[in-house]
Formats: sequence, C-alpha cells, structure tokens
Amino acid sequence: MTGTKRVLITGGAGFVGSNLCERFLGEGWRVVAIDNLITGTNRNLDSMIDNDAFEVVNADITKPMNIDGPVDLVLHFASLASPLKYFEHQLETLRAGSDGTFNTLDLAQDKGARYLVASSSEVYGDPQVYPQPETYWGNVNSIGPRSMYDESKRFAEAAVMAYHRTSGMDTRIIRLFNSYGPRMRIDDGRVVSEFIRRALNGEPIQIFGDGSQTRSMCYVDDTVEGIWRVSQGEGLNGGVFNVGNPDERTVLELASLVVEYTGGEASIKHLLPRDEDPQRRCPDISRMRELAQWEPKIDLREGVQRTIAHYREQLGL
Amino acid sequence: MTGTKRVLITGGAGFVGSNLCERFLGEGWRVVAIDNLITGTNRNLDSMIDNDAFEVVNADITKPMNIDGPVDLVLHFASLASPLKYFEHQLETLRAGSDGTFNTLDLAQDKGARYLVASSSEVYGDPQVYPQPETYWGNVNSIGPRSMYDESKRFAEAAVMAYHRTSGMDTRIIRLFNSYGPRMRIDDGRVVSEFIRRALNGEPIQIFGDGSQTRSMCYVDDTVEGIWRVSQGEGLNGGVFNVGNPDERTVLELASLVVEYTGGEASIKHLLPRDEDPQRRCPDISRMRELAQWEPKIDLREGVQRTIAHYREQLGL
Repeated sequence: MTGTKRVLITGGAGFVGSNLCERFLGEGWRVVAIDNLITGTNRNLDSMIDNDAFEVVNADITKPMNIDGPVDLVLHFASLASPLKYFEHQLETLRAGSDGTFNTLDLAQDKGARYLVASSSEVYGDPQVYPQPETYWGNVNSIGPRSMYDESKRFAEAAVMAYHRTSGMDTRIIRLFNSYGPRMRIDDGRVVSEFIRRALNGEPIQIFGDGSQTRSMCYVDDTVEGIWRVSQGEGLNGGVFNVGNPDERTVLELASLVVEYTGGEASIKHLLPRDEDPQRRCPDISRMRELAQWEPKIDLREGVQRTIAHYREQLGL
Repeated sequence: MTGTKRVLITGGAGFVGSNLCERFLGEGWRVVAIDNLITGTNRNLDSMIDNDAFEVVNADITKPMNIDGPVDLVLHFASLASPLKYFEHQLETLRAGSDGTFNTLDLAQDKGARYLVASSSEVYGDPQVYPQPETYWGNVNSIGPRSMYDESKRFAEAAVMAYHRTSGMDTRIIRLFNSYGPRMRIDDGRVVSEFIRRALNGEPIQIFGDGSQTRSMCYVDDTVEGIWRVSQGEGLNGGVFNVGNPDERTVLELASLVVEYTGGEASIKHLLPRDEDPQRRCPDISRMRELAQWEPKIDLREGVQRTIAHYREQLGL
C-alpha cells in the first residue's frame, strides 16, 4: 500500500461521514472511520466493511486519541447534527465542537496532515443577509435553544483558525447547508427524512407553522463532491467554503414532493411554529463555483426519489 | 467557621478576580482563589494572603480539578482578557472558555453550588444596535482575528445554559464591559492601563485611528459591586446581565484625561486603525438597574485619578 494516501474521518459512521468514506475508498485512499455510534450506525458501513483499505475505530473523539501510522488528511465530521439529537445530548454536542476539534487538530498536527472540519450553515443563525456568503458574520443567539449546536460550530471554526495562524497548519472549513439522502437515519428528525418516514409509515407529514419557511436541500452526492474538492484543492488553505444547494424551496413544497413520490396518500398537518426555527437559509456558492469549480448537479425531484427508494429498501417495503 | 459561606474564584489572581476575592473576604466569606498565573499575579493577593479565610490554589482550570470541602458559589473568571495576551495565547484562551467552563461547571454540580461565569461585551462583537441590551445577539466574525476570545466567551455562555437546562443548576452569566482600575496589570495593553503606563514612562500615548471610537469604561469597584449583586440576588437564576458603565467616551477624550492627571506632559500619537477594532460599545444596563438595583457610581475622572495613584504607588513614583 506504499504511496496510498490515508484519511481519518471522524463521524465516519454518520450520514455525511459514511458517504465520505465510500467516496475516498473509491478514489483509492485508505480510510480510517472513527465513531462512537451515538447517532452513527454500523449499517452505514456494511458495503465497506470487507474492504482491506477500510478500518473502523469505535472511539469518543472528545477524549485524546492515538492512531498508528501515517495520516495525510483529517476530516472532522463527528457531531450531533439533528436538532432532536442535539437537544437530547447538549453537552456531547458542545464537546464535539470543542474537545473533539482540539483532539483532531492535535492529531493532524502530530501527523503533519491537512485538516478539514465540517462546520454548518447554523453559524449564520437566523440570517439577515440572503443568500449567505462566507463573509457574512451571522446572527446567532449564544444563549438560545439551538446555541449548544451553533456555538459549538462557531467555536470549532475559531479553534481551527487559531491552529492555522499559530502553527501554519493547512486547514479548510466547510459550512454545510442542509443535506439529505441515503444513510441519513430515518429517525434523524430533519425535514426530508422525517417527511419520508411519516409518509412511508402512513402518518401525516408535520409542518411547523405554515410551511412558507424555506430550506435549500443538497443531495448528499453533491455535498460529498464539494467536500472532496475542497479537501483536494490547491490554494484553499485557510479558507472557509459554503457547500450547499442554492435552490431554495419552501418546506410546504418539499412536503408536497414527498407526498407525490410516496404514492400521493400522505396528508400534511400544520403545527405551531418552533422557537427560533430559521425562516430562510440559502447559500451563496460563488466561492465554490470559482475556486473549486463545484455546484450541485442533482435536483430536488431526483434526490427525493432516490432517497425514498433508499428508505423503502432499508425498511423492506 | 461553621456556617461561613465559601466561594471559589477562578482567575482569582487576575484583575477582576483579585478585586472579587477582596470583596468576598470583606463580606465574611471564605475564599478559594484558583489561578495558573499566566497573566494573574500573586502581587494582587498581597493584602489577603495572611487572611485565614483565604486560600490560593495554583492550578490550570482547563484540567479537571478537585477542591476539598463545601463550595457554595463558583465564579469562573479565568481567561486571558487583554487582546495582547489572547493573541499570544490563542489556544489557552479558547480552552479557558471550553474546558475551563466545563470543569468549573462540573465542580459546581458536584458541590451543589451556584455558578456565575464572566462573559464579555465581546459577545456583541461589532454591534449594530446601540446601546446593547442583553437580548441583542451580536455581530461576531467566527474566523476573525479576535475570534479566539469572542467565540470562547460565546461558547462558555452556551455551555452554562446547557447545564442550566439539563440539570437545573442555578447559573448566572455576566457580560463585562471594559473595566479598569487597581490590580489591572500595567502591561495589560488595554486602553486605560496602557495610556497611564505610557504617560508615567514619558512615552507618547498611542491611539489607533483618530480616537473617535468610543469605550464605556467601568471602574472596577463598580464592576465588583455589580457582580456581587448578581451573585447574591434572588430571581436571577438562569439570567444574563450586562455589567458596565453606559458613560460612553471617545478614546481621545480618555487619553486627554490621562494626560491631564499625569501632569500634562504626555503627548498623543495617532497610529493606523486596527483590524476589526470595535468602533462603539456601550451597555444597556436597564436590566441591572431593575433587577439588581445597580448602576455605576464612580465617574471617569475620579476612577482615572485613583488608577493613576495606584500605578504610581506600584512603580514607586
């Protein structure tokens, strides 16, 4: 295996993490996936587990870790990313952004590896600028009900930049906007998986408020392509990149698509709006277009159909 | 000593911390000061060190700590607070807000103690609202040159609220605006101490830009009174409080006062503005007025004179 590059992916059994593992294996890399399986699941790794280039380490990245052998690239993707999950695990969510980031940065420094962290569009909070470019500073309530996640990600960004400045480490920050697709837990709770779960179970699809709030949903293959390009690109050292789909849709429209592609039987039920639920979120991806020649390719109809097919298969429907 | 209350003060050898130690001793409390002496100095504790009710522990609060005996109140005031110092110690600054906050929260939880953290007006960043009430969410660049401090404080707030929500801990967050006065290091680098240091040394006072940027400076005795009240008040559990002086002055006016009270000899020199130097910062203290019956009493002229007298004595002038 001499000469083969080796990547360490924290949260490797998670939604985006496991899709990244598959991509890096496909590109001929050796892959070490680290996960504590709070929300990640080994089932996401089934198709890779027999691959000799693939290792899985069950570990908690909020504790210092030691990985034998060379590492060329560290991708820190471990975090509770679903609001349902991060309300349930508030302290773990905070620590994944603080200790988890420090520990993986220390490891990258020891190994002389490039470092990439998954930040989030949540650093923009409830934005007052549309669409959001990477230069926008955000509008986040540091003591609000979502702050354990938002501030964890903002802290992780500050920590990465501190390492970049003080030790010259090659770092890249990716702000992921909503992604969806295969390997997201069906009980994740975020819109696409939740709408499909309910429709497939014959339950009404629940919308908080009137459904006019928008989301811009990026199919995971596009997300992974964006991350891959940022991880490989030259001249991106020290940079911050929005990876998401600027195709903004209302939550109601998304629900209607799910109804349509699950057979048209599901009903839609409106609930009271949630506290500090972002009303709009849409990435400005000019920087990714220019510096990484990347933009999403898979439109929402196609992505929703593929995702429904995935969940049908998983549920044996 | 049965019945005497006991407070743990991290950063107890620092500027605000050591003034708090003195206050709590004066109120009849037993005081444990914890400091790693990166920027705190034992000289700040000279007047207390022989007091039987006072203990000093030289420890790094970013490591888990164990304190014997009961603790009624934890005041987490350890942090690099001067921009000069936090640029020099970026990772320590971040960790004081993350690990330092977790460790002190864990200790408060073990002891069943009330918890108060020193946050900062820096959580408001470069504010777009004047004056800043506690409900303002701020305007902070998570990857900017001051982010290691700002995000450390924002993270600390989110962590405190997570403990408050998940374990019902009695918590209070104080957002300190610029304070000045005795026991601030003369080489701290922030405006008041720096202007006085230069004037007393016969060096020109340096102003970044034209000096029209404002600061609202709170004399430390007022700051300590505000913190004392928040720490003791009923009905403040879970709250966030601005402690600062709304008397907004330009940096140029402050420099002129220092020139006047140091003998009128010092000159003023203008330098280029600094990157992301906040242009205005002024607390809305309505909440403190209403809920803690607190407002600053010592005006800038009086405070500057007292501070100059302190530094003269320290320097043997």
